[in-house]
Amino acid sequence: MNAAQAVAATGKDLLALADLPAELITTLLDTAEGLLEVGERTVKKVPALRGKTVANVFYEPSTRTRTSFELAAKRLSADVLNVSVPASSVVKGETLLDTARTIEAMNVDTVVIRHAASGAPQLLARALSSHIINAGDGAHEHPTQGLLDLFTIRRAKGRIAGLVVVIVGDIAHSRVARSGLIGLTKLGAHVRLVGPPTMIPVGVAELGEPPGTCEVVADLDAALDGADVVMPLRLQLERQGAPLFSSRREYAVRWGVDRRRMALAAPDAIVMHPGPINRGVEIAADVADGERSTILTQVTHGVAVRMGVLFHYSGGGAA
Amino acid sequence: MNAAQAVAATGKDLLALADLPAELITTLLDTAEGLLEVGERTVKKVPALRGKTVANVFYEPSTRTRTSFELAAKRLSADVLNVSVPASSVVKGETLLDTARTIEAMNVDTVVIRHAASGAPQLLARALSSHIINAGDGAHEHPTQGLLDLFTIRRAKGRIAGLVVVIVGDIAHSRVARSGLIGLTKLGAHVRLVGPPTMIPVGVAELGEPPGTCEVVADLDAALDGADVVMPLRLQLERQGAPLFSSRREYAVRWGVDRRRMALAAPDAIVMHPGPINRGVEIAADVADGERSTILTQVTHGVAVRMGVLFHYSGGGAA
Amino acid sequence: MNAAQAVAATGKDLLALADLPAELITTLLDTAEGLLEVGERTVKKVPALRGKTVANVFYEPSTRTRTSFELAAKRLSADVLNVSVPASSVVKGETLLDTARTIEAMNVDTVVIRHAASGAPQLLARALSSHIINAGDGAHEHPTQGLLDLFTIRRAKGRIAGLVVVIVGDIAHSRVARSGLIGLTKLGAHVRLVGPPTMIPVGVAELGEPPGTCEVVADLDAALDGADVVMPLRLQLERQGAPLFSSRREYAVRWGVDRRRMALAAPDAIVMHPGPINRGVEIAADVADGERSTILTQVTHGVAVRMGVLFHYSGGGAA
Repeated sequence: MNAAQAVAATGKDLLALADLPAELITTLLDTAEGLLEVGERTVKKVPALRGKTVANVFYEPSTRTRTSFELAAKRLSADVLNVSVPASSVVKGETLLDTARTIEAMNVDTVVIRHAASGAPQLLARALSSHIINAGDGAHEHPTQGLLDLFTIRRAKGRIAGLVVVIVGDIAHSRVARSGLIGLTKLGAHVRLVGPPTMIPVGVAELGEPPGTCEVVADLDAALDGADVVMPLRLQLERQGAPLFSSRREYAVRWGVDRRRMALAAPDAIVMHPGPINRGVEIAADVADGERSTILTQVTHGVAVRMGVLFHYSGGGAA
Repeated sequence: MNAAQAVAATGKDLLALADLPAELITTLLDTAEGLLEVGERTVKKVPALRGKTVANVFYEPSTRTRTSFELAAKRLSADVLNVSVPASSVVKGETLLDTARTIEAMNVDTVVIRHAASGAPQLLARALSSHIINAGDGAHEHPTQGLLDLFTIRRAKGRIAGLVVVIVGDIAHSRVARSGLIGLTKLGAHVRLVGPPTMIPVGVAELGEPPGTCEVVADLDAALDGADVVMPLRLQLERQGAPLFSSRREYAVRWGVDRRRMALAAPDAIVMHPGPINRGVEIAADVADGERSTILTQVTHGVAVRMGVLFHYSGGGAA
Repeated sequence: MNAAQAVAATGKDLLALADLPAELITTLLDTAEGLLEVGERTVKKVPALRGKTVANVFYEPSTRTRTSFELAAKRLSADVLNVSVPASSVVKGETLLDTARTIEAMNVDTVVIRHAASGAPQLLARALSSHIINAGDGAHEHPTQGLLDLFTIRRAKGRIAGLVVVIVGDIAHSRVARSGLIGLTKLGAHVRLVGPPTMIPVGVAELGEPPGTCEVVADLDAALDGADVVMPLRLQLERQGAPLFSSRREYAVRWGVDRRRMALAAPDAIVMHPGPINRGVEIAADVADGERSTILTQVTHGVAVRMGVLFHYSGGGAA
């Protein structure tokens, strides 16, 4: 057991799917399953976390993830604090750890943290007794995104074990890809990674557990052959200093998932996307809006999964 | 029945007063009337929308309108999400429709939208099953402002039918003026529009329903003769690229509502303003703060009217 | 009784510790004492302010203070509005008073205001019937910070009367220093002010009540002799146009509180800081994190003190 796993074993924090045994991942999915119907009620609220405090501490802007966590917490009746750090104490030069300790000192039960630096949530988890939920750290992990992807696949296919999942795009910079491939292989799927060679880090297939469950494929058409799930990644146009590809158009031709390519996958294959999508770049508009797309379902599931995560980590007697 | 009216007839959304029959406008005012006293209680809260989710999605900054909707939703016990889009996913280039679909997928019952583009709320209303409330779209409409103006006039005067209302200023760029004149004429008032010729669009008087209920008057003093309600519009200093008038001072002399001009109106005339005011420009400070001013009363009524709108569209079995 | 005291005597607002009799300060501390344990419960919520509305109106960014007030209000079950003014109606050029009157017209019970201009809360208190709580105004006062400092000292030492408290740093620009020295001397402590001569305003010791309870000391080591409480102020690096000291390093050498200096104080002396800290500048990292530091305890107490203040001013029949 390495240091990260030792932290994870306390059950205090959700930092990375790499830390979690398959059984705990399944437990979290089952918990979300039980909470999914709350979002469909007339009164979308249960008192599970009444009087608990959840702080969303975001060092990177994200409407989508912040909003999903905020709604999840409110539907569990928690009090929610939104702390958008660029707009506030970074002005005063406070360190991450001092900010987090200050928030904890206000008797905040759970800190949901997004940060551009890989490992920031781990740093907080070691220093604080509050529960830390990683909402995305650099190019490392985005575990609740991984969980909602697993949840969506399990509901669409009835299982995860034995499925072939293709992840397409900028694997190197994608915490979504990392959390996805780790979670998927732990639950028995086979993952194919494909994308521009400059965006595929050496050795990335070794993240699959157990060994041999993840492979890098050079050609997208070949990778799609018989796939059950196709997962194009968002092309992070705004993140790139120097462009790693000559144009959006060229990217679409070589790596975009369109209707022709979806025909190479299994007849009942689904197409997933973490959002927000670049229509016509990594995914064709008709595929994104088509009947095999789970994009909006993933958003719905995201709230349920985050309710499950908040309930599991903040609600019970875990810590 | 045109396309916009077909949407309105479903009763799902509040997009524009132009879509609403006079009876529905009156129903909304009556609903607000019943909720006005909630704001005066010691416990300013009723459980009407408990467990419902209202998202305020603002593509333009507005403390005033966002705050009013937020309080209205909270006093009805709804959960409220504030999404200020410039600060978040516009960074990532997501389209309006994808943002809105994402919010809807989180089981948001009602989306309150403000957008610089006329017609943005209509676009959402057609695409989403959530209730859409227009909080101001470009120079088109601001229906809850129109309703709160009607509400304030009805309470001050005991009626709307037969009153003479003067709207002064930049009619061309004002959604407040459009919603006001449409709602007022539907309920039987006579509206006079007056302002700098460059700010009066050709044909604007035809917005009055039925025909002949709205007229353009060239001279402010003439327009004020016997008026029951005087409504100077905010001079949108921040919106104008090239100035359409030579100076604030000149504007005040020609189009500002001051004490001398108020004396031309009926002895019991009231003066209204949507706020925020430019003191000494479109309205003299002593008039704004005087006993005939309803400016702060309008703010109070705004919360009640928005409570009524949220309750009517989100609360009952309308959709 | 001067004008400020006349306002204070109504008990409607908390503007400055200078306005409060010692008895009222003690009452506020006692109220906080009763609420402190709410933050340690599993369900951190009491219904005391259910259905009340608290607006945090911040003209300067502050994660720390805004968050503390927001949590305090939520734990009392109030509805909370956050209004960050730079991002909203300052764009439209609205005056402070018009903004505040607009918020009040929405039936907001309590306005928590932070503003760069000294006296802004006083202006609002005279104009509005809402309760005004000063969350920091220019270089004038920050009364809830003063109260939480008193609260922390009283809990650490069992008393305030007779203690020697050293405040170190930029006294001239520090509302924390002003509220601290005024509150401390009113409750019977003796205060020594020390810092760079350019940062010590002439006559500042006269703020101590009664006369003779506050003195300026030139040398930090001398000031620390036998002190019970040491309070280095944050060096406001971001506030200074032209630097008033040659370097952070030089500041640390001459005015920084480190382990050697703490040894000059009483054996059981505590070290306090309003946060956020500049590690290695006004306070050494090992002192800040050491067992005599109350920095994080102050944060915890801050929520309890603000709960007490909101309860006292908004909750009872005070106004």
